[in-house]
Amino acid sequence: MIPIITAIEQSPDLGQGLARDMPVRWALEEVGQPYEVRLVSFSAMKQSAHRALQPFGQIPTYEEGGLALFESGAIVFHIGERHAGLLPNDADARARAITWMFAALCTVEPLERLPIDEDRIRDRLTDLSVRLGEGEWLDGVFTAGDLLMVQVLRRLHSDGLLDGYPNLVAYITRGEARPAFKRAFDAQLAAFAGTPARPSGSDI
Amino acid sequence: MIPIITAIEQSPDLGQGLARDMPVRWALEEVGQPYEVRLVSFSAMKQSAHRALQPFGQIPTYEEGGLALFESGAIVFHIGERHAGLLPNDADARARAITWMFAALCTVEPLERLPIDEDRIRDRLTDLSVRLGEGEWLDGVFTAGDLLMVQVLRRLHSDGLLDGYPNLVAYITRGEARPAFKRAFDAQLAAFAGTPARPSGSDI
Repeated sequence: MIPIITAIEQSPDLGQGLARDMPVRWALEEVGQPYEVRLVSFSAMKQSAHRALQPFGQIPTYEEGGLALFESGAIVFHIGERHAGLLPNDADARARAITWMFAALCTVEPLERLPIDEDRIRDRLTDLSVRLGEGEWLDGVFTAGDLLMVQVLRRLHSDGLLDGYPNLVAYITRGEARPAFKRAFDAQLAAFAGTPARPSGSDI
Repeated sequence: MIPIITAIEQSPDLGQGLARDMPVRWALEEVGQPYEVRLVSFSAMKQSAHRALQPFGQIPTYEEGGLALFESGAIVFHIGERHAGLLPNDADARARAITWMFAALCTVEPLERLPIDEDRIRDRLTDLSVRLGEGEWLDGVFTAGDLLMVQVLRRLHSDGLLDGYPNLVAYITRGEARPAFKRAFDAQLAAFAGTPARPSGSDI
């Protein structure tokens, strides 16, 4: 069963891969799961057909047979549960990976939307930078927690908030160097450019 | 193994149960898991001993043997995985419950922190109100998604943002009527009042 995700027809970030379909594409590529993309316009996103899948009128959504999910974090988690490669088998390591998923989305991601409070942003990024230190990933091996954290940091970096945090920038670079990231990035760029998206492994 | 959580010694909400230890207490009560609480002061929260558990210097944390977790969402999820009562057994229903957990924390909770943009807040709350409709819970039976959503809405309600959404207020009321909620609320209030917290089922 090939899952179907949704993305915005005209990405507001001009194909930089900062929209919320990107972590879902990336996760699917990490686990080697082919997928299809249905592009929706801004107006269609707010209409009832789409709201039946996503009550807040946003992207992405994820459909797999009779199952319909939304929230990029929940979709990445679902992919991690169904396939090897994003969540460790060891129970404690798995719980820690899930902790980093929530940390990315609930503690770090809101920094982008907060009213200007540079001290608070700097404190939180310093905490993250100290915690990562010289580590390659947040808890040893790459997990869905790193996937979401790198993606969140990419958005902050595009706002110029990561100057002075070389280890966080290097962490982003390691994430972006993963073949799965590149495939996901190229797929969303192709969708933005108006070329039909052709996810890896799909025959369409 | 009795888990140990942390909470703030002097709750800034004066015992209204709006701090982030509350959803963790509530989840533990829903599943009937006794727990211990270690109260930390604002200054201790920022020191290295606490940061070893929580790199951002926040509460709550969760310790269970050698496992240390943070992020209230991740802790509630961990409790839901270890015990019956918060995540459905059916795989699709479970994935939808997890979707609502992320929706609570990533889509609804940030409304509290956004710069004043009343249209956006109203639109999002209207979407949620429409989706809930006359339903008792978000997806049939009570799950960890409802637990986090009710808790998030309690914070918005205390800011006066739920006037005009009677079904969301009634949803909060249903959540607050759960015996587990009441036990959790009383425990955090006792901690605030300086009375030693005495979680249900503990012998201490």
